Amino acid sequence: MGIAIISPNRNPSVWVQNIKKIDDSIDIQVYPNIPRKDDVDLVILWQHPKGILREFKNLKLICSMGAGVDHILSDDTIDPKLPITRIVDEKLTFSMTNYCVMGVLNFHRQMKRFSVQQSNKNWDMSNPEIDVHVGVLGVGELGGDVIKKLQSLNIKVSGYGNSPKIGLDYPYFFGDELELLLKKVNLIICLLPLTADTENFLNKDFFRKCSEGTYIINVARGKHLVEEDLLEAIREGHISGALLDVFRTEPLPTDHPFWNEEKISITPHIASVTNPDAAAPQIVENYNRLLNNKFLKNSIDRIKGY
Amino acid sequence: MGIAIISPNRNPSVWVQNIKKIDDSIDIQVYPNIPRKDDVDLVILWQHPKGILREFKNLKLICSMGAGVDHILSDDTIDPKLPITRIVDEKLTFSMTNYCVMGVLNFHRQMKRFSVQQSNKNWDMSNPEIDVHVGVLGVGELGGDVIKKLQSLNIKVSGYGNSPKIGLDYPYFFGDELELLLKKVNLIICLLPLTADTENFLNKDFFRKCSEGTYIINVARGKHLVEEDLLEAIREGHISGALLDVFRTEPLPTDHPFWNEEKISITPHIASVTNPDAAAPQIVENYNRLLNNKFLKNSIDRIKGY
Repeated sequence: MGIAIISPNRNPSVWVQNIKKIDDSIDIQVYPNIPRKDDVDLVILWQHPKGILREFKNLKLICSMGAGVDHILSDDTIDPKLPITRIVDEKLTFSMTNYCVMGVLNFHRQMKRFSVQQSNKNWDMSNPEIDVHVGVLGVGELGGDVIKKLQSLNIKVSGYGNSPKIGLDYPYFFGDELELLLKKVNLIICLLPLTADTENFLNKDFFRKCSEGTYIINVARGKHLVEEDLLEAIREGHISGALLDVFRTEPLPTDHPFWNEEKISITPHIASVTNPDAAAPQIVENYNRLLNNKFLKNSIDRIKGY
Repeated sequence: MGIAIISPNRNPSVWVQNIKKIDDSIDIQVYPNIPRKDDVDLVILWQHPKGILREFKNLKLICSMGAGVDHILSDDTIDPKLPITRIVDEKLTFSMTNYCVMGVLNFHRQMKRFSVQQSNKNWDMSNPEIDVHVGVLGVGELGGDVIKKLQSLNIKVSGYGNSPKIGLDYPYFFGDELELLLKKVNLIICLLPLTADTENFLNKDFFRKCSEGTYIINVARGKHLVEEDLLEAIREGHISGALLDVFRTEPLPTDHPFWNEEKISITPHIASVTNPDAAAPQIVENYNRLLNNKFLKNSIDRIKGY
């Protein structure tokens, strides 16, 4: 009985410490040094080498190190009957929401323009605010919190998802109502889960349907965005700019045109980083639930993809 | 009977239109063209020429065009028995709060650092957040709203004012407890009214008492800040930076060192601009209350200075 951590691009030592702090008796092996694969009941994964789980004969549960599970679902060598759980972390929600609210306010109050004015010693008080109506794509745990916080700041906001919902206190659009949403809003926050349906969601056709001057914030996954389509829409002037935290290739290659595009602001995938202090107890709890045949917390639906 | 508007540095035409829209019968004269001074019961002031009110024999009420009244109280030629009212404008609160929240989030999420990293094509994910505890100086209409909204984003916040208060749901300090506040917080928002006591409040001594790395946001009045003391504290590295919307001289002179100081962000007094749509009804209402000998709304206390 034991746990294996497989996260080649993320240092797992703080995860090991935090799990041991809760239960020192748990056997933890860390990739690439996992000699006793048959002892592993639970794996904690982040961007694992595809196919590696075939070697784990007694595996019963896969835990994502983060809120997303696309890195797991995209590996078709994984037994589809294995349950998958994700991390739900208040701190993760706090960080994601505050990053998004910051992006909205910088657009609303035109901080990029005022920064250019400062470089030019230009005192121009005219039209100091852009009226903003935010459209949040994806109204789950994270998107729902962003909407709630924007509402508390009296900023207009609408939501979009793939299924109908009732009892919401904001305008909500779903499925093929996307165009109705895009006509109403002038700032898009992408917080969609990454699935086969949402890959390349932010593409040429999407941008064409946006209102003139719409601003784009992508904090979900790099694969949601067709990067060359965004560049083209920004250069045409139809999309006014973007704040991007995620990219198709990370770190962003040094020859990528986004680095130099003045209407694009880049951050290095830091909008929200899972905090092992909060995550480890969730994993240990699910490990104990697994051993005692109880239902798992925060498990995801393979069909929906999140 | 009538109104005069005296605002040499602000275009009054939209104020005239908005008042006329409510009551077309009101006689409005606009500076510098005020031939019938004896007909004026009420003046609307913004940065008027000092001494000009001595010519208005029948004046009964002074209305500030904004939330602040320091431009009126600083003119000692004005009869101290004349009542003064100010504008209380929800839109003004909305704008001020969102500007302040933006400043807090940009510090918390280090947007200036990430913007420098982008210029250098540097992908550095380390320590993406600064833990922030905000100290709001001045907890009136505007400061109180900033505190409420920061609380809704789960950001730590404390308040400071000149008198004791009860029933607050945040830590509050007053009078000579300033040092206790400054030890707790690492971001200061100045929203004090400008009075003889608060002029030059943000000075060398204040900065010395701040915690290492404290960030300063001034959205109140230029005269709250001793500008050379801030520059010195920033250059020493004790104060980590500032977001300034108001200055001792406006527009900020082109040879002012703030323009080129990379740790200072400048906006041209746009954090919050009174919206005549909201303000005109308040002035007309007080005009009618004056004519009918009713108590005035939003009148200020000359002794307190706000």
